[in-house]
Amino acid sequence: MKVITLLTDFGDFYPGVMKGVILSLSPEARIVDITHDIEPQNVFQGAFLLYNSYRYFRDAVHVAVVDPGVGTERRAVVIESKNYFFVGPDNGILYPSAVEDGIKAVYSIKEEISKLVGELSTTFHGRDIFAPAAAMVANGDYTYFEEFDSGELKELELFDYSIGGNKVRCRVVYVDRFGNIITNLRELKGKRKGFYFRNIEFPFVKTYLDVDVGEPLSLIGSFGTLELSVREGSAADMLGIKRGGEWIELEVL
Amino acid sequence: MKVITLLTDFGDFYPGVMKGVILSLSPEARIVDITHDIEPQNVFQGAFLLYNSYRYFRDAVHVAVVDPGVGTERRAVVIESKNYFFVGPDNGILYPSAVEDGIKAVYSIKEEISKLVGELSTTFHGRDIFAPAAAMVANGDYTYFEEFDSGELKELELFDYSIGGNKVRCRVVYVDRFGNIITNLRELKGKRKGFYFRNIEFPFVKTYLDVDVGEPLSLIGSFGTLELSVREGSAADMLGIKRGGEWIELEVL
Amino acid sequence: MKVITLLTDFGDFYPGVMKGVILSLSPEARIVDITHDIEPQNVFQGAFLLYNSYRYFRDAVHVAVVDPGVGTERRAVVIESKNYFFVGPDNGILYPSAVEDGIKAVYSIKEEISKLVGELSTTFHGRDIFAPAAAMVANGDYTYFEEFDSGELKELELFDYSIGGNKVRCRVVYVDRFGNIITNLRELKGKRKGFYFRNIEFPFVKTYLDVDVGEPLSLIGSFGTLELSVREGSAADMLGIKRGGEWIELEVL
Repeated sequence: MKVITLLTDFGDFYPGVMKGVILSLSPEARIVDITHDIEPQNVFQGAFLLYNSYRYFRDAVHVAVVDPGVGTERRAVVIESKNYFFVGPDNGILYPSAVEDGIKAVYSIKEEISKLVGELSTTFHGRDIFAPAAAMVANGDYTYFEEFDSGELKELELFDYSIGGNKVRCRVVYVDRFGNIITNLRELKGKRKGFYFRNIEFPFVKTYLDVDVGEPLSLIGSFGTLELSVREGSAADMLGIKRGGEWIELEVL
Repeated sequence: MKVITLLTDFGDFYPGVMKGVILSLSPEARIVDITHDIEPQNVFQGAFLLYNSYRYFRDAVHVAVVDPGVGTERRAVVIESKNYFFVGPDNGILYPSAVEDGIKAVYSIKEEISKLVGELSTTFHGRDIFAPAAAMVANGDYTYFEEFDSGELKELELFDYSIGGNKVRCRVVYVDRFGNIITNLRELKGKRKGFYFRNIEFPFVKTYLDVDVGEPLSLIGSFGTLELSVREGSAADMLGIKRGGEWIELEVL
Repeated sequence: MKVITLLTDFGDFYPGVMKGVILSLSPEARIVDITHDIEPQNVFQGAFLLYNSYRYFRDAVHVAVVDPGVGTERRAVVIESKNYFFVGPDNGILYPSAVEDGIKAVYSIKEEISKLVGELSTTFHGRDIFAPAAAMVANGDYTYFEEFDSGELKELELFDYSIGGNKVRCRVVYVDRFGNIITNLRELKGKRKGFYFRNIEFPFVKTYLDVDVGEPLSLIGSFGTLELSVREGSAADMLGIKRGGEWIELEVL
């Protein structure tokens, strides 16, 4: 039994179709949804959430499809790393995870793999290319894969924040259901008293409980990066930030 | 191991209860969610999405429950087709899929099947009737099924659009997460330059990439029907169409 | 194969990470989502929905995490009952279900269990504590559990409504996707003609079909408690009640 995980921006319905394709070709596969609510076309967010989930699985095939270039010449790829396989478009979404785990080999997926499903659509390669590719990986069948040089992979840098003086410029990568604002800022050398953003002070603490209910705070959260939060409240509502993608500038206190 | 798929308008929570019932009665079943976000009571949308997903599975029991008539005399049915079983209310939701695959036999589900679960509610036959029926089908146990004439099945026509002169009248059946507007229009004889709708021209193209980012387009999408789209944008936002169900009239260019 | 169910207020993404942890430690486990859309921090709603789903499973490990006290001294517990195991924070969320099934033994989870996952975060004990605990329960491995007196468990009363004269004061516990307003009112001795709320009469009926389409009604729903509904419409929209948690006062007719 092989675990196949799915991470997409497909929202509803389409992932169910992908599961049908996978189970038809690899009946023993166990499919686990990581998320299907990546913000539409937000490759960076997809890469960030894959990076923060892949390692909690053991011996899995990770399929990640956020694919604004569907239908173009961008490669569809399988990356074999030390402990995992990654399947998706070659737009950087797989890159940070695969590099961290240690890339062993890289394959492009031949379009003919879509014959295992039906006619190739121009809009839904999750169904026609990536789902059958994941099943073939789980089956150990490399018929439709062709090795290429891993140096040709599209790269993507997750931790592209910058620090200058008492300013930090970083990205909001994810706003979770509680309204926590997760950034990609991970290194914080030295002691920080907190962060100042949009006229609000977010004291830097260890746990939510270090401030009163309803009060803002900042901490290193479960992603290992800086989060802006409100105890038992929503920093997203307080700041009017509803989605990832925004660059923000924080003043360091 | 038998795959049982679920397609409902139940949204949250209720599907989890159905899964408990299924696994209690058929512990080896593998349950796959197609969607639980069919628009409330929209039988047509349920039928359309089932029709566009069932065939990607192999040898599955497909349970589809969109059931405005719950508690009335409408039949609860199992349809055995060439490759699948379909379980749901007899309101047309199963009909187009079962007909396409080839109906072999039709059974009504006896209300007593609810005894396998508990007391029969008047509001949640997904739990009390359809979930145990799916488990029984997976187990090959026909105790609670009674054959009837398939000619008595409620019919439903998915492709009920009409073409007259340079006008096409069709339905919006689904608005996906990207804001693509999926219609039920599937035949397009001859060459089309595009479609005109609400003063916007949607040129008819092969892929998203045939227009610039932010521009409207139309194409035959992954459902095999006409979709109105905006490249890396949302046709739903552009047109103010947020849900399926609407009839629309397009001018053919 | 052991069934592990998940019920949380985590929404998106985080549950996928929990599944990775569980499957890494207990590869044969079958994971079923009950819901991840409990209203943030609404322990009462979590307890109510767990209570209305746990019994439809057979021989399961039920994990329920709605945990406003994450990072405090609140216990993380495993409750062994007659037919189930329950895993979650000791804030009452597990209590009504475990008591109903019959508590056999109660264990606190040692924080060291997080070593099976990685470094203990202060914000995501679903991943670091409860997911590995569920896997260990499924494996029958009690290394990280320590028995304590069940009398020390935090209690929670689901049916805390009050009846006085012709008034009933009860809670809205859940608003479902159809806009049905589910309360925690379960006993209704004697005959009732209906309920009066915010100047609207909700006649008390057996099924939706006892009123016309678009008309309000009340009935004992699939939770075994009073629901306010509108036939093929939304009582939530009619009354402006969008979420659980509110206390309401009904006049009994």
